[in-house]
Amino acid sequence: MPVNKLDEFAPIFYPQSHAIIGASADVRKFSGRYLQTVLAFGFSGRLYPVNPQETEVLGLKSYPSVLDIPEPVDFATIVVPARAVPKVAAECLTKGVKGVQVLSAGFREVGPEGERLEKELGEIAAKGLRIIGPNCFGVYSPDGGITILPGANLPKDSGPVAFISQSGGYSIRMPRRGSGMGLRFSKVISYGNACDINECDLIEYLYQDPQTKIITGYIEGVKDGRRFFELLKEVCRTKPVILWKGGLTKAGARAVQSHTASLGGGEEIWDAVFRQTGAVRVSGLEELLDTTLAFLQLQPESRGKASVIGGGGGIGVAAADICERVGLSLEVFPTEVQKKLASIVPPSGASVRNPVDVASPVPPAPMLKAVLETIATEADVDILIVDELEMAARMLLPENEAEQAQVLTEGLAQVPVDIKAKSGKSVVMVMPVEAIGSDGIESERDRRRISEFYFQHKIPVFMTIERAAKALVNFISYHRRNATMSSPSRQSVEVMP
Amino acid sequence: MPVNKLDEFAPIFYPQSHAIIGASADVRKFSGRYLQTVLAFGFSGRLYPVNPQETEVLGLKSYPSVLDIPEPVDFATIVVPARAVPKVAAECLTKGVKGVQVLSAGFREVGPEGERLEKELGEIAAKGLRIIGPNCFGVYSPDGGITILPGANLPKDSGPVAFISQSGGYSIRMPRRGSGMGLRFSKVISYGNACDINECDLIEYLYQDPQTKIITGYIEGVKDGRRFFELLKEVCRTKPVILWKGGLTKAGARAVQSHTASLGGGEEIWDAVFRQTGAVRVSGLEELLDTTLAFLQLQPESRGKASVIGGGGGIGVAAADICERVGLSLEVFPTEVQKKLASIVPPSGASVRNPVDVASPVPPAPMLKAVLETIATEADVDILIVDELEMAARMLLPENEAEQAQVLTEGLAQVPVDIKAKSGKSVVMVMPVEAIGSDGIESERDRRRISEFYFQHKIPVFMTIERAAKALVNFISYHRRNATMSSPSRQSVEVMP
Repeated sequence: MPVNKLDEFAPIFYPQSHAIIGASADVRKFSGRYLQTVLAFGFSGRLYPVNPQETEVLGLKSYPSVLDIPEPVDFATIVVPARAVPKVAAECLTKGVKGVQVLSAGFREVGPEGERLEKELGEIAAKGLRIIGPNCFGVYSPDGGITILPGANLPKDSGPVAFISQSGGYSIRMPRRGSGMGLRFSKVISYGNACDINECDLIEYLYQDPQTKIITGYIEGVKDGRRFFELLKEVCRTKPVILWKGGLTKAGARAVQSHTASLGGGEEIWDAVFRQTGAVRVSGLEELLDTTLAFLQLQPESRGKASVIGGGGGIGVAAADICERVGLSLEVFPTEVQKKLASIVPPSGASVRNPVDVASPVPPAPMLKAVLETIATEADVDILIVDELEMAARMLLPENEAEQAQVLTEGLAQVPVDIKAKSGKSVVMVMPVEAIGSDGIESERDRRRISEFYFQHKIPVFMTIERAAKALVNFISYHRRNATMSSPSRQSVEVMP
Repeated sequence: MPVNKLDEFAPIFYPQSHAIIGASADVRKFSGRYLQTVLAFGFSGRLYPVNPQETEVLGLKSYPSVLDIPEPVDFATIVVPARAVPKVAAECLTKGVKGVQVLSAGFREVGPEGERLEKELGEIAAKGLRIIGPNCFGVYSPDGGITILPGANLPKDSGPVAFISQSGGYSIRMPRRGSGMGLRFSKVISYGNACDINECDLIEYLYQDPQTKIITGYIEGVKDGRRFFELLKEVCRTKPVILWKGGLTKAGARAVQSHTASLGGGEEIWDAVFRQTGAVRVSGLEELLDTTLAFLQLQPESRGKASVIGGGGGIGVAAADICERVGLSLEVFPTEVQKKLASIVPPSGASVRNPVDVASPVPPAPMLKAVLETIATEADVDILIVDELEMAARMLLPENEAEQAQVLTEGLAQVPVDIKAKSGKSVVMVMPVEAIGSDGIESERDRRRISEFYFQHKIPVFMTIERAAKALVNFISYHRRNATMSSPSRQSVEVMP
């Protein structure tokens, strides 16, 4: 990888001046929404609406063309109709713009005429203008002060997760939902039809980007399979790459054709890609979010012996079924650990084999502490999964007993944090949305607050044991593979010309 | 089925007088929590705490023994320690109590001594006292004014769904979460170790119960396999039975041993049970809730040709992948329907083949209406799935633009309701929780309000397209099977001695 992508892509992710070509004041149109979004998000550089029909748009002076802007422009967003895109892109090239994002749709995905337009755009790119899109929602780069459509509300602070997406919809959903789960993003790139900058360019850039520690993506097809494969093999050794491949079924592949018209490749090809490169495979947005959360918050973990601690026998049965189905190892504790646990939990209604049932969804804090401490220090376990204990008991009790709920759960939420700090073991919480109706909104507020408290302490919170188990298996498998790869005997096999 | 279970079980589900044996004022104990829960829920009959150590418990006169209560008692809840249970149960028999629920744990699930106690309890039952439990959370019967532990908050109004559960934890989670999804329950029974009343007795009762239209259950093992099989075969012809069998994996079966010590039977046996009886198989709480919602809100549907309408290409690709994987049929629309749809949606960024992409997550209401109308009336489709459109656009926009969000979504939420009313087709909504952090609580409030609006119009709302598709496949398969069974040729084969 000789090219320094960091300098090459800097004008796109950290623009000093930004022209919006096709900006309008009508916020019902994409062209209006985009400028409004940029303004609401806040951009510290210079902003130039370009629209020959207006002299001013949303309070900013408007220029007839990018060529009329008196200062240098390093980045432009193009939101004019498809047929006008090549002309304004060529003007950008003339002006000396370094990078553009084309949000407009109506290219390859609509047929021969669009294909022609896209080819023209590719030719302009070849002359020295780097292009994101067309048919995309653009770039979110919080430290660069730019956001995707309609990402006015996305966090202003950045973080170690990058997301590349061939879907505009997921390029907004991933950071929107992720931010509520404690994820923060270095860059999100909706790259659409990829007439110039494609998945490989972006992965190369993010591999070099010191801000990015985890690369994630939604991909419908790749432009250059060989390059993609070799690149993933290299990147995955040091930065995890978590990918969701859309369109692997027949119906899905058909939908890809009308979306980005990418050539997908079948299920077998992708099986091989994941197996041979070490990229982490997920199959939906929830699994992508959950797996990323595990990578973000947990210490590397290649053994993955897990224990489940819940407050109910059925909860334990379900956890055991699910962990076995997804391949997460729940070993029965040795007799001496079971005996010690039995001396802590209530004499009846509990279970101590793994899963552990502490006999109540709201155990007293000292009891839960003793149970978790025993498992963390005496059982041969790497991960403690605290499953569906009710850290805020509000939903168990009538509204007028909020005070009592507080008494019941006094000190409970703190216990997993203390155990993690003391033992150094990974602790994971499962906290489902129990109160899902309008009348449960206050319980949900409590649940979210407690979740955020855990995120701060690097304890990931998942909605269900199934989602937790899947994320953990993805996480452990990646580290297990890398541990094997870096052992000397294995490495000599892998280092090929 | 000669026995009239309705009369036999009436004292349990509609008690006139209720003794709570072991009631205490200490709400940190189960014995205290139960009485408090009953009081908070509100019981219109006579309530008698029984506790030899107290003269008054939580403001009610307390009796030393059930035999000291001066009036007749038809139902009792037993919350004394396991070793004392047979004695007080025998006293209930003497007193003429008709049914009891034993919440206490410490029986078969803890070993030989508990097994002996449970056997004793079974012998008392055989003399004429019907027993629910032991090791359970009891009965929720809103029309009978009784609730399970800790179900003080559960709805006071009843509905057509019954749930039987060998897990106490799920017996509270099912109605708690279900009530937020528009489900209402006739009865919920946590029946624990089933020393007397077992899953077959309960299913027989619910089959006869005119209030119950859908029978659901979480089951770890059955007492009498042959009876269970024959009963399901009969019941499923007229009332759907939706079952989640816990403990089908090796690890799960082990967990069942420490929970209710039921004999489970392996995966192959249960495969056969589901295949041959027509019971609907689910494998977790979410799938149970979702499937029940489909049965509750949709018209019987045995063909199940579905269409998906979303606002984004990636959303459509994911929907197509998922529907194909779970077996929900998404056929490409005929050319003339595609042409008509193409004349309605925007010229670029949309797709009209099925899934349909209306090119924006917030389409204008008249456009969405024309799209849905075209599909409902001109495509050969039974079910319209409206996938992840943002009926409340609040989360798309900054806080200070709430008004604009309202303008953008003006009339949008009403469209699916109108289409359903006009076409008679099934309409299903997918509305994920987009804003999952504390700062998104107001968006979540909007989402819940809109969901409840749909429930009222018999439009089920699911959290993800995956959950929707699974629930629909379960629902359609049941009706498809029943349609085949009731065809004359098939019936003659089925009616065997």
